[in-house]
Amino acid sequence: MQLTEIETPALVLDQAKMDRNIARMRSKLAALGVAFRPHVKTAKAIDVVGRMLSTPRGPITVSTLKEAEYFFSHGISDITYAVGITPNKLDHVARLMRAGCDLKIILDNADAARAVVEKGRAAGVRFKVLIEIDCDGHRSGVKPDAPELIAIGKLLHEGGADLMGVLTHAGESYNSRSTDAIRAMAEQERSRAVHCAQRLRSAGLPCPMVSVGSTPTATYAEHLEGVTEVRAGVFVFFDLVMAGIDVCEEDDIALSVLTTVIGHQRDRGWIITDAGWMAMSRDRGTAKQAVDQGYGVVCDVNGRPIEGLIMADANQEHGVIAHRSKDPAQTPDLPVGTMLRILPNHACATGAQHDRYNVIANSDDKEVQAVWPRFSGW
Amino acid sequence: MQLTEIETPALVLDQAKMDRNIARMRSKLAALGVAFRPHVKTAKAIDVVGRMLSTPRGPITVSTLKEAEYFFSHGISDITYAVGITPNKLDHVARLMRAGCDLKIILDNADAARAVVEKGRAAGVRFKVLIEIDCDGHRSGVKPDAPELIAIGKLLHEGGADLMGVLTHAGESYNSRSTDAIRAMAEQERSRAVHCAQRLRSAGLPCPMVSVGSTPTATYAEHLEGVTEVRAGVFVFFDLVMAGIDVCEEDDIALSVLTTVIGHQRDRGWIITDAGWMAMSRDRGTAKQAVDQGYGVVCDVNGRPIEGLIMADANQEHGVIAHRSKDPAQTPDLPVGTMLRILPNHACATGAQHDRYNVIANSDDKEVQAVWPRFSGW
Repeated sequence: MQLTEIETPALVLDQAKMDRNIARMRSKLAALGVAFRPHVKTAKAIDVVGRMLSTPRGPITVSTLKEAEYFFSHGISDITYAVGITPNKLDHVARLMRAGCDLKIILDNADAARAVVEKGRAAGVRFKVLIEIDCDGHRSGVKPDAPELIAIGKLLHEGGADLMGVLTHAGESYNSRSTDAIRAMAEQERSRAVHCAQRLRSAGLPCPMVSVGSTPTATYAEHLEGVTEVRAGVFVFFDLVMAGIDVCEEDDIALSVLTTVIGHQRDRGWIITDAGWMAMSRDRGTAKQAVDQGYGVVCDVNGRPIEGLIMADANQEHGVIAHRSKDPAQTPDLPVGTMLRILPNHACATGAQHDRYNVIANSDDKEVQAVWPRFSGW
Repeated sequence: MQLTEIETPALVLDQAKMDRNIARMRSKLAALGVAFRPHVKTAKAIDVVGRMLSTPRGPITVSTLKEAEYFFSHGISDITYAVGITPNKLDHVARLMRAGCDLKIILDNADAARAVVEKGRAAGVRFKVLIEIDCDGHRSGVKPDAPELIAIGKLLHEGGADLMGVLTHAGESYNSRSTDAIRAMAEQERSRAVHCAQRLRSAGLPCPMVSVGSTPTATYAEHLEGVTEVRAGVFVFFDLVMAGIDVCEEDDIALSVLTTVIGHQRDRGWIITDAGWMAMSRDRGTAKQAVDQGYGVVCDVNGRPIEGLIMADANQEHGVIAHRSKDPAQTPDLPVGTMLRILPNHACATGAQHDRYNVIANSDDKEVQAVWPRFSGW
């Protein structure tokens, strides 16, 4: 089948770009001398994740227990579930561990640690736990100098859990304004994680793993002394938010949404398409960047950007394409039936709106080589 | 099963509120003397849509051909696909019609009309077509006074298609600032649709259907003379965007996302949960309203709003709950493991992130009465 025969909207994956993105991240991390635990929340498909693995068993990072279930069913057993655990998910974690999954969980507070210890005792399971560190005030985690870090470590270690180490995520790096700022964030992420690891070890607690990672900091880290592994996910496809902070080029973006022109409002310079926010997601991540890309950059069916055209607005199943200048005269004439491809703001959000990837070999090829299923939900 | 036993995040549907919303819309439209063709793009589940039907065969409105396929497979045959048709979807439409589906399509330009006529001849199918009218400059449609309206009508009628009438959608009503403004929009929607129907009839063309509709205009329309049917969708669940323009009360919102507290950043007054934008969608529809609700209004597990608490920010699988005032001292103490429910900005967008509804009888009941599957995609 050709791209042009697909009923739109549909998700298109350029395999050559994806493979190049994976190879680049792999060689970057090899040069830094750290293990790679890719985050699979962007891809959610074994056909993609299989290409990122260091060994058939992993390691990988997941954002939901459904991802853990799915990838474990595909033979991947070394898994870290990198969202703070709640007591009501521990039975599910225990089931996966009993089935042979080497599943690690994270937490950042004493209440959760106590729940883990109690459930571990009650269920006869030795949970494997990393303590989440807040390296940049972005979201979750224990502050690097908080006394609580040692208290949580002791609770877990003395309570019969396996204290596996520390984990942090430099989420603020997504909001960086320069590559120098990302470099500084990478060093902050590294140094604070290593500092916490040293604090645990000085307190006589084990800390074999020091896990850091975000696509921006993994891309710009200058050294990772003391770190044992890096997690990164969105690099596999990249997107306009990453291009907007110079973590990739627009040409590296492997994911796009295929759409068809359904009409025009010529007085306004609008081209109406059948890919709305349901196909792109509501993500407007470039709105706060230097260049606002609307709902995405408009390309021809071969994935080449059309000068000045963006998806300016969206309804559920309608896209509104217009020229950046808002000058109707600048909008090219694209007749009804014309097929286009839209580069997304955020690959994780756009991917999640679809249940399959239509895979093309590269941008010179319109033949669909494979259809790879992907999943969503919990 | 009790709500408190569900692994979070999860979608919760309050059946009593939904039933009340349906009954209210039904009686409103009966009083106006028009047929009801509910839009099923919000619900995407037969268990919900079955409760909105006038007869087992329909009518309904759909936003994708996948919805048409699914609801047709459940015995609903009177279907209007209310997104401008593209030539490459006509084979699919023809397949559904041959299988017995009374499927109507829409278009707003001569190119699409020509494609419909040509495909109809080639495939031996008499397509049923409504011409889309632009009643408010919101999106698609022929301008009410454009000569093109008659030209398209003639192209279709003389080319062997069934010209079924006109269809419009007052999408701008979502941006209204007062109920008076919505009333005026309802009258504009009605009068422009009726005007176009009269133009077609004066030109000797058939126009049996005059289809209008949006939840706001359907709610506030004072009369619908000349209109044959109303389409509306989001009313079935309602949401914060609708409450923000006084189309419903917050207490009418039947849909919410169940989540669990996973941690805190107490210095900031943040409560961290396991429902991020993946569970809520990225929709920030209240951002441009008088009251910005963030990613949603925070309720206790019984669905009662907690004074001042909103979901202030979101990552993929993390929600950040804070007090509207941003004063950390105002954030109540909700321990790790506390379950909450978040009312969504936009029911269509939030629903689409989930594959099932956990149905409770009413807000006094935490027992899950049923699990209704729902679908997404194309």
